[in-house]
Amino acid sequence: MSFDVTPIGQVESPLADPAEAPKQGHEGSPAAWLVFEPPVLDGLADIRPGDRVVVLTWLHRARRDVLRVHPRDDPANPETGVFSTRSADRPNPIGLHPVQVVEVDGRRVRVANLEAVDGTPILDVKPHL
Amino acid sequence: MSFDVTPIGQVESPLADPAEAPKQGHEGSPAAWLVFEPPVLDGLADIRPGDRVVVLTWLHRARRDVLRVHPRDDPANPETGVFSTRSADRPNPIGLHPVQVVEVDGRRVRVANLEAVDGTPILDVKPHL
Repeated sequence: MSFDVTPIGQVESPLADPAEAPKQGHEGSPAAWLVFEPPVLDGLADIRPGDRVVVLTWLHRARRDVLRVHPRDDPANPETGVFSTRSADRPNPIGLHPVQVVEVDGRRVRVANLEAVDGTPILDVKPHL
Repeated sequence: MSFDVTPIGQVESPLADPAEAPKQGHEGSPAAWLVFEPPVLDGLADIRPGDRVVVLTWLHRARRDVLRVHPRDDPANPETGVFSTRSADRPNPIGLHPVQVVEVDGRRVRVANLEAVDGTPILDVKPHL
Protein backbone atom coordinates (compact mmCIF):
# COMPACT_ATOMS: atom_id res chain seq x y z
CA MET A 1 0.00 0.00 0.00
CA SER A 2 1.24 3.48 -0.75
CA PHE A 3 -0.13 6.96 -1.38
CA ASP A 4 0.83 9.70 -3.83
CA VAL A 5 1.84 13.13 -2.60
CA THR A 6 1.87 15.95 -5.14
CA PRO A 7 3.92 19.08 -4.42
CA ILE A 8 1.92 22.29 -3.98
CA GLY A 9 5.00 24.43 -4.60
CA GLN A 10 8.72 24.62 -4.02
CA VAL A 11 11.36 26.39 -1.98
CA GLU A 12 13.50 29.16 -3.46
CA SER A 13 16.54 29.60 -1.25
CA PRO A 14 20.17 30.67 -1.47
CA LEU A 15 20.97 27.30 0.16
CA ALA A 16 21.98 25.01 -2.70
CA ASP A 17 23.76 22.16 -0.97
CA PRO A 18 22.35 20.07 1.88
CA ALA A 19 25.85 19.96 3.40
CA GLU A 20 25.67 23.76 3.88
CA ALA A 21 22.18 23.68 5.36
CA PRO A 22 22.02 24.12 9.13
CA LYS A 23 20.52 21.20 11.04
CA GLN A 24 17.78 23.38 12.55
CA GLY A 25 16.13 26.44 11.08
CA HIS A 26 17.12 28.71 13.96
CA GLU A 27 20.81 28.00 13.44
CA GLY A 28 21.37 30.77 10.94
CA SER A 29 19.19 29.81 7.97
CA PRO A 30 18.55 32.54 5.39
CA ALA A 31 15.13 33.86 4.52
CA ALA A 32 13.60 31.90 1.65
CA TRP A 33 10.57 32.07 -0.62
CA LEU A 34 7.84 29.47 -0.78
CA VAL A 35 6.57 29.55 -4.36
CA PHE A 36 3.13 27.94 -4.72
CA GLU A 37 1.49 26.35 -7.75
CA PRO A 38 -1.35 28.48 -9.15
CA PRO A 39 -4.07 25.80 -8.64
CA VAL A 40 -3.65 25.89 -4.82
CA LEU A 41 -3.72 29.67 -4.34
CA ASP A 42 -7.24 29.66 -2.84
CA GLY A 43 -5.80 27.65 0.05
CA LEU A 44 -3.27 30.44 0.75
CA ALA A 45 -5.78 33.27 0.91
CA ASP A 46 -5.59 33.75 4.69
CA ILE A 47 -1.82 33.56 5.14
CA ARG A 48 -0.54 36.89 6.51
CA PRO A 49 2.85 38.38 7.44
CA GLY A 50 3.57 37.48 11.06
CA ASP A 51 1.80 34.09 10.87
CA ARG A 52 3.70 31.23 12.47
CA VAL A 53 3.27 28.14 10.32
CA VAL A 54 4.73 24.68 9.84
CA VAL A 55 5.88 23.98 6.28
CA LEU A 56 5.89 20.32 5.27
CA THR A 57 8.41 19.45 2.58
CA TRP A 58 9.54 16.39 0.65
CA LEU A 59 13.27 15.97 1.37
CA HIS A 60 13.94 14.82 -2.17
CA ARG A 61 17.65 14.15 -1.69
CA ALA A 62 17.18 11.93 1.35
CA ARG A 63 17.84 8.20 1.56
CA ARG A 64 14.76 6.13 2.40
CA ASP A 65 16.54 2.92 3.42
CA VAL A 66 18.11 4.37 6.59
CA LEU A 67 16.71 3.43 10.04
CA ARG A 68 19.63 4.34 12.33
CA VAL A 69 21.85 7.43 12.18
CA HIS A 70 24.52 9.28 14.14
CA PRO A 71 22.60 12.44 15.14
CA ARG A 72 23.84 15.62 13.43
CA ASP A 73 26.09 13.42 11.24
CA ASP A 74 28.60 13.33 14.10
CA PRO A 75 30.18 9.89 14.53
CA ALA A 76 30.77 10.79 18.21
CA ASN A 77 27.00 10.66 18.77
CA PRO A 78 25.74 7.12 19.36
CA GLU A 79 23.71 5.55 16.56
CA THR A 80 20.03 6.33 17.13
CA GLY A 81 16.75 5.12 15.62
CA VAL A 82 15.64 7.68 13.00
CA PHE A 83 12.20 8.14 14.60
CA SER A 84 13.98 9.72 17.60
CA THR A 85 15.91 12.14 15.35
CA ARG A 86 15.34 14.89 12.79
CA SER A 87 17.45 13.06 10.18
CA ALA A 88 16.35 13.77 6.61
CA ASP A 89 17.16 10.13 5.85
CA ARG A 90 14.10 8.06 6.89
CA PRO A 91 11.46 5.87 5.23
CA ASN A 92 9.15 8.79 4.32
CA PRO A 93 11.43 11.84 4.13
CA ILE A 94 8.90 14.53 5.06
CA GLY A 95 10.45 17.66 6.57
CA LEU A 96 8.70 19.80 9.22
CA HIS A 97 9.84 23.41 9.29
CA PRO A 98 8.39 25.87 11.82
CA VAL A 99 8.80 29.32 10.25
CA GLN A 100 7.35 32.80 10.42
CA VAL A 101 5.78 34.47 7.38
CA VAL A 102 7.55 37.73 6.49
CA GLU A 103 5.84 38.78 3.25
CA VAL A 104 3.08 37.56 0.92
CA ASP A 105 3.35 38.52 -2.75
CA GLY A 106 0.76 36.65 -4.82
CA ARG A 107 1.88 33.04 -5.05
CA ARG A 108 5.22 33.81 -3.35
CA VAL A 109 5.50 33.75 0.45
CA ARG A 110 8.72 34.87 2.13
CA VAL A 111 9.61 33.12 5.39
CA ALA A 112 12.38 33.47 7.94
CA ASN A 113 14.63 30.63 9.12
CA LEU A 114 13.88 27.87 6.62
CA GLU A 115 16.67 25.29 6.47
CA ALA A 116 15.47 23.53 3.27
CA VAL A 117 17.63 23.73 0.13
CA ASP A 118 16.64 25.42 -3.12
CA GLY A 119 14.16 23.37 -5.13
CA THR A 120 12.78 21.39 -2.18
CA PRO A 121 9.16 20.39 -2.96
CA ILE A 122 6.49 21.75 -0.58
CA LEU A 123 3.70 19.37 0.46
CA ASP A 124 1.62 21.41 2.91
CA VAL A 125 1.43 24.45 5.18
CA LYS A 126 -0.37 24.34 8.54
CA PRO A 127 -0.77 26.62 11.55
CA HIS A 128 2.01 26.15 14.09
CA LEU A 129 1.37 23.19 16.44
CA MET B 1 5.53 15.21 -10.43
CA SER B 2 4.54 13.19 -7.39
CA PHE B 3 6.14 11.02 -4.72
CA ASP B 4 5.10 7.77 -3.07
CA VAL B 5 4.66 7.55 0.68
CA THR B 6 4.52 4.09 2.22
CA PRO B 7 2.94 3.65 5.65
CA ILE B 8 5.31 2.50 8.41
CA GLY B 9 2.39 1.38 10.58
CA GLN B 10 -1.15 2.21 11.57
CA VAL B 11 -3.22 3.58 14.41
CA GLU B 12 -5.28 1.31 16.68
CA SER B 13 -7.86 3.44 18.44
CA PRO B 14 -11.37 3.17 19.89
CA LEU B 15 -12.24 6.13 17.61
CA ALA B 16 -13.90 4.60 14.56
CA ASP B 17 -15.66 7.54 12.96
CA PRO B 18 -14.01 10.83 11.99
CA ALA B 19 -17.21 12.63 13.06
CA GLU B 20 -16.57 11.46 16.64
CA ALA B 21 -12.92 12.48 16.60
CA PRO B 22 -12.13 15.69 18.48
CA LYS B 23 -10.62 18.46 16.35
CA GLN B 24 -7.50 18.64 18.50
CA GLY B 25 -5.78 15.87 20.41
CA HIS B 26 -6.07 17.66 23.75
CA GLU B 27 -9.86 17.85 23.48
CA GLY B 28 -10.52 14.49 25.08
CA SER B 29 -8.96 11.97 22.70
CA PRO B 30 -8.47 8.45 24.04
CA ALA B 31 -5.12 6.74 24.35
CA ALA B 32 -4.28 4.81 21.20
CA TRP B 33 -1.66 2.37 19.97
CA LEU B 34 0.75 3.02 17.12
CA VAL B 35 1.43 -0.38 15.55
CA PHE B 36 4.57 -0.40 13.41
CA GLU B 37 5.54 -2.62 10.50
CA PRO B 38 8.31 -5.08 11.41
CA PRO B 39 10.78 -3.77 8.77
CA VAL B 40 11.01 -0.33 10.43
CA LEU B 41 11.55 -1.48 14.02
CA ASP B 42 15.24 -0.46 14.06
CA GLY B 43 14.07 3.12 13.63
CA LEU B 44 11.99 2.86 16.82
CA ALA B 45 14.79 1.56 19.05
CA ASP B 46 15.24 4.80 21.03
CA ILE B 47 11.57 5.68 21.62
CA ARG B 48 10.89 5.65 25.38
CA PRO B 49 7.87 6.23 27.64
CA GLY B 50 7.62 9.94 28.36
CA ASP B 51 9.00 11.02 24.95
CA ARG B 52 7.10 13.85 23.31
CA VAL B 53 6.87 13.14 19.60
CA VAL B 54 4.99 14.28 16.52
CA VAL B 55 3.23 11.47 14.65
CA LEU B 56 2.68 12.09 10.94
CA THR B 57 -0.30 10.27 9.49
CA TRP B 58 -2.04 9.94 6.14
CA LEU B 59 -5.62 11.13 6.64
CA HIS B 60 -6.98 8.50 4.31
CA ARG B 61 -10.61 9.60 4.48
CA ALA B 62 -9.91 13.23 3.61
CA ARG B 63 -10.91 15.03 0.42
CA ARG B 64 -7.95 16.33 -1.58
CA ASP B 65 -9.86 18.79 -3.79
CA VAL B 66 -10.74 21.20 -0.97
CA LEU B 67 -8.92 24.55 -0.68
CA ARG B 68 -11.32 26.56 1.52
CA VAL B 69 -13.21 25.38 4.61
CA HIS B 70 -15.31 26.64 7.49
CA PRO B 71 -12.95 26.01 10.44
CA ARG B 72 -14.11 23.28 12.82
CA ASP B 73 -16.91 22.46 10.32
CA ASP B 74 -18.91 25.34 11.77
CA PRO B 75 -20.73 27.34 9.09
CA ALA B 76 -20.65 30.33 11.48
CA ASN B 77 -16.87 30.50 10.98
CA PRO B 78 -15.90 32.38 7.81
CA GLU B 79 -14.52 30.29 4.95
CA THR B 80 -10.74 30.10 5.31
CA GLY B 81 -7.89 28.89 3.08
CA VAL B 82 -6.96 25.35 4.17
CA PHE B 83 -3.29 26.24 4.68
CA SER B 84 -4.38 28.48 7.58
CA THR B 85 -6.39 25.64 9.18
CA ARG B 86 -5.97 22.13 10.55
CA SER B 87 -8.64 20.74 8.21
CA ALA B 88 -8.05 17.10 7.24
CA ASP B 89 -9.35 18.03 3.78
CA ARG B 90 -6.39 19.52 1.85
CA PRO B 91 -4.29 18.65 -1.22
CA ASN B 92 -1.86 16.38 0.69
CA PRO B 93 -3.81 15.16 3.73
CA ILE B 94 -0.90 14.63 6.11
CA GLY B 95 -1.86 14.84 9.79
CA LEU B 96 0.50 16.16 12.49
CA HIS B 97 -0.24 14.84 15.97
CA PRO B 98 1.84 15.95 18.96
CA VAL B 99 1.55 13.15 21.51
CA GLN B 100 3.36 11.70 24.50
CA VAL B 101 4.57 8.11 24.55
CA VAL B 102 3.03 6.12 27.42
CA GLU B 103 4.30 2.59 26.81
CA VAL B 104 6.51 0.70 24.35
CA ASP B 105 5.76 -2.98 23.78
CA GLY B 106 7.79 -4.33 20.86
CA ARG B 107 6.27 -2.95 17.69
CA ARG B 108 3.36 -1.37 19.60
CA VAL B 109 3.67 2.10 21.10
CA ARG B 110 0.89 3.49 23.28
CA VAL B 111 0.37 7.26 23.15
CA ALA B 112 -1.93 9.71 24.93
CA ASN B 113 -4.24 12.18 23.19
CA LEU B 114 -4.18 11.01 19.58
CA GLU B 115 -7.22 12.23 17.61
CA ALA B 116 -6.71 9.94 14.58
CA VAL B 117 -9.31 7.26 13.85
CA ASP B 118 -8.69 3.51 13.93
CA GLY B 119 -6.77 2.29 10.88
CA THR B 120 -5.15 5.63 10.04
CA PRO B 121 -1.83 4.95 8.25
CA ILE B 122 1.31 6.28 10.00
CA LEU B 123 3.98 7.91 7.82
CA ASP B 124 6.61 9.06 10.30
CA VAL B 125 7.47 9.83 13.92
CA LYS B 126 9.77 12.71 14.88
CA PRO B 127 10.86 14.44 18.08
CA HIS B 128 8.49 17.25 19.10
CA LEU B 129 9.17 20.52 17.24
